[in-house]
Amino acid sequence: MIGRLNHVAIAVPDLDAAAEQYRGALGAVVGPAIDQPDHGVTVIFVELPNTKIEFLYPLGAESPIQNFLDKNPAGGIHHICYEVDDIIAARDKLVATGARVLGNGEPKIGAHNKPVLFLHPKDFQGCLIELEEV
Amino acid sequence: MIGRLNHVAIAVPDLDAAAEQYRGALGAVVGPAIDQPDHGVTVIFVELPNTKIEFLYPLGAESPIQNFLDKNPAGGIHHICYEVDDIIAARDKLVATGARVLGNGEPKIGAHNKPVLFLHPKDFQGCLIELEEV
Repeated sequence: MIGRLNHVAIAVPDLDAAAEQYRGALGAVVGPAIDQPDHGVTVIFVELPNTKIEFLYPLGAESPIQNFLDKNPAGGIHHICYEVDDIIAARDKLVATGARVLGNGEPKIGAHNKPVLFLHPKDFQGCLIELEEV
Repeated sequence: MIGRLNHVAIAVPDLDAAAEQYRGALGAVVGPAIDQPDHGVTVIFVELPNTKIEFLYPLGAESPIQNFLDKNPAGGIHHICYEVDDIIAARDKLVATGARVLGNGEPKIGAHNKPVLFLHPKDFQGCLIELEEV
């Protein structure tokens, strides 16, 4: 059911510093900062040959990232995203096993303009998992 | 400098349950459990189309994973691994920027029988990063 690892998302306390370190010391291809006010984040994508790293930085007073950074001031891995072909079928299969979907259980349009869901970390080895329909 | 994301490593409190969930509910290709006594872990690899997920479970009394699981009983993402062509050159470039390498600073032979190093999470957005020479 799950396909590619679409990205690993890292919450960062300093977006410019993270971008500069990955561009410079780590020699990666780093994109521009993009504000996503609907999601309460500013993001930067690092393009690796096989997947992406997504830096997340809080945007606005209600950012879902702020609480994570308050608990993890140095930053940290926030979630990983698996691609699925059919997000409703994936959700229904997972819910049938007892796994919990965050929010109201319905897909939202994510940062890549595609339907996404988040799964409860306690049901998945302590990892916040995003499913993205591709 | 960094190339592919080789894997995302997840410390899990129950290796069989994690394997069964990924094989069943998530429909992924899950390999066998492999004891790695030199590293103090039992590992299982989940093969995604573009990268791998590595489940880590403590093996032996001195496992480097036990402390992580004590702090994170549900499990959690332990590290991410980037591939590099030349691990000595990568290390020297990173150390020159002030980044810290864990241990004695010399590569060890990792779980894939290739030279690896771990970088200090506080120098990399709170993420423990493994570099693996490929």
